[in-house]
Amino acid sequence: MRAASYAPDKLKPIKQKKIPTHASEPGGFERLVNIIEEIWPKDGCVDAIGLGSPGPLDPHTGYLLSPPNNPEWHNFPLAPKVAEHFGVKTYLNNDANLAGLAEYRFGAGKGHHNVLYITVSTGIGAGVIIEDRLLLGNHGLAAELGHVILDPNGPLCACGYKGHLESFSSGPAIVKYFLGELEAGSKSSLKQDINLTARDVAEAAKKGDALAIKAYSRAGEYLGIGVASFLHVFDPSIVIFGGGVSQVGNLLFDSFHISLKKHVFHPRYLEGLVITKAQLGDDAGLLGARALAELKLKV
Amino acid sequence: MRAASYAPDKLKPIKQKKIPTHASEPGGFERLVNIIEEIWPKDGCVDAIGLGSPGPLDPHTGYLLSPPNNPEWHNFPLAPKVAEHFGVKTYLNNDANLAGLAEYRFGAGKGHHNVLYITVSTGIGAGVIIEDRLLLGNHGLAAELGHVILDPNGPLCACGYKGHLESFSSGPAIVKYFLGELEAGSKSSLKQDINLTARDVAEAAKKGDALAIKAYSRAGEYLGIGVASFLHVFDPSIVIFGGGVSQVGNLLFDSFHISLKKHVFHPRYLEGLVITKAQLGDDAGLLGARALAELKLKV
Repeated sequence: MRAASYAPDKLKPIKQKKIPTHASEPGGFERLVNIIEEIWPKDGCVDAIGLGSPGPLDPHTGYLLSPPNNPEWHNFPLAPKVAEHFGVKTYLNNDANLAGLAEYRFGAGKGHHNVLYITVSTGIGAGVIIEDRLLLGNHGLAAELGHVILDPNGPLCACGYKGHLESFSSGPAIVKYFLGELEAGSKSSLKQDINLTARDVAEAAKKGDALAIKAYSRAGEYLGIGVASFLHVFDPSIVIFGGGVSQVGNLLFDSFHISLKKHVFHPRYLEGLVITKAQLGDDAGLLGARALAELKLKV
Repeated sequence: MRAASYAPDKLKPIKQKKIPTHASEPGGFERLVNIIEEIWPKDGCVDAIGLGSPGPLDPHTGYLLSPPNNPEWHNFPLAPKVAEHFGVKTYLNNDANLAGLAEYRFGAGKGHHNVLYITVSTGIGAGVIIEDRLLLGNHGLAAELGHVILDPNGPLCACGYKGHLESFSSGPAIVKYFLGELEAGSKSSLKQDINLTARDVAEAAKKGDALAIKAYSRAGEYLGIGVASFLHVFDPSIVIFGGGVSQVGNLLFDSFHISLKKHVFHPRYLEGLVITKAQLGDDAGLLGARALAELKLKV
């Protein structure tokens, strides 16, 4: 759990604080209240509070719906309760949306009006800015791009459905494919191991392991198919990649770029399109929550 | 080619006129100017002109890019030339976007803020309203939902790429699948005929032809897969179907509804979701062009 307080015109926080989240333990709301109190600015002047959390949640009402690993917070009015406690307007959104908003406002997407931010990590999430507004949807569940169907007969996704982008190109998907091929008889320097991580596979790939290279290049190929569809859907001027898996560089992105060009159905989508890495790293969530609060106050 | 003039507060046009388009014949611009002159209101007061055309086009600049069957209008500054000729602000957008805008403003989508309009016809097009604004994209090429990839190894689309929604669920896709199965030995009351239309297949299906029924139900199944992804992307409060193929009713929509429910990955997307038919029929294009002009004047 991280918290920071910001002055309106500065990127560097006035105060910040980080504590272990312990999501599944009781007392989460009290821990949240405490950490907010600790970073409260000395002058006491706070215009708004922005909160980020894993989904699913409802950004319109500020309710958490059913966060995994946290039964205490099912259907929990997080933003209303924080607002009531502190007497300050409070806004809630999900991690990926906030990271996208932060990159648009303060990071790689500055100056762009139509931004597609994709985080490739344990899952695949997204934040989409359309003409300077965050895409939310009617229930606040839009931009779940990791759960767009790339192949109805594809692998099982962590969500229980088949063939989603996340089931092809997330970290666990890369490991699953790698282990499946290993079991089917493909050779590799790595041994069958259920604790294997996407990072292990990346390291083997960097040392020349053919199966590990193939596992990443396949993930990149499907990421290219997904992003081609997202260009047809959103026609953004920039695509920004965040998340741990996207840090591997060419291992994922060589095949991504080839696949993207192969699958975009009109060359104009690529004219002037910027494809780049996220700039804000671990601060994206905090800066996104801040951007959300600023954005909401302006509306 | 159709044109109509409207008073601000009435749905019924002051005047309207229809002429054959003859897209591939020279003189298209002159025919357009003439038909606009014919519907010009008597009092001479025109605030703005809205134009609709098949894409690809650039709604930001008002240029037609490369309309099929019309070499004369490649990279053609249609809206600027009309604006110059009449001395009136002129706005251009594509057919599907305008039909979606019209349904949102005057038809089935009235009162909704997040609207997904899909036309299933010779092609599959879409118009998407997000928080009361038409989704355009950086080059004005957003919302090409017919060209979202449902299966990278799927059938060839009319655009030359593989596995698009349009390659599964458009009229020609239904006919192509039907003829392919017929050639592969499936039995049907219809004979192999390259002039067969989606309407012929629908009529056979209504008479109980098993292969014809299967061709439509397959199209509906893939339409359900596509729309499930679009819910994850946009989270609209209403999905509106227009276009000739969508007129067949249960033949397409029974399997569509089953497939949609099967593929939506969180039940909340379906809470309160309206799925309905377009209301404006052939007038959607005209009313959309009018809505576009009104919208632009207000911005």
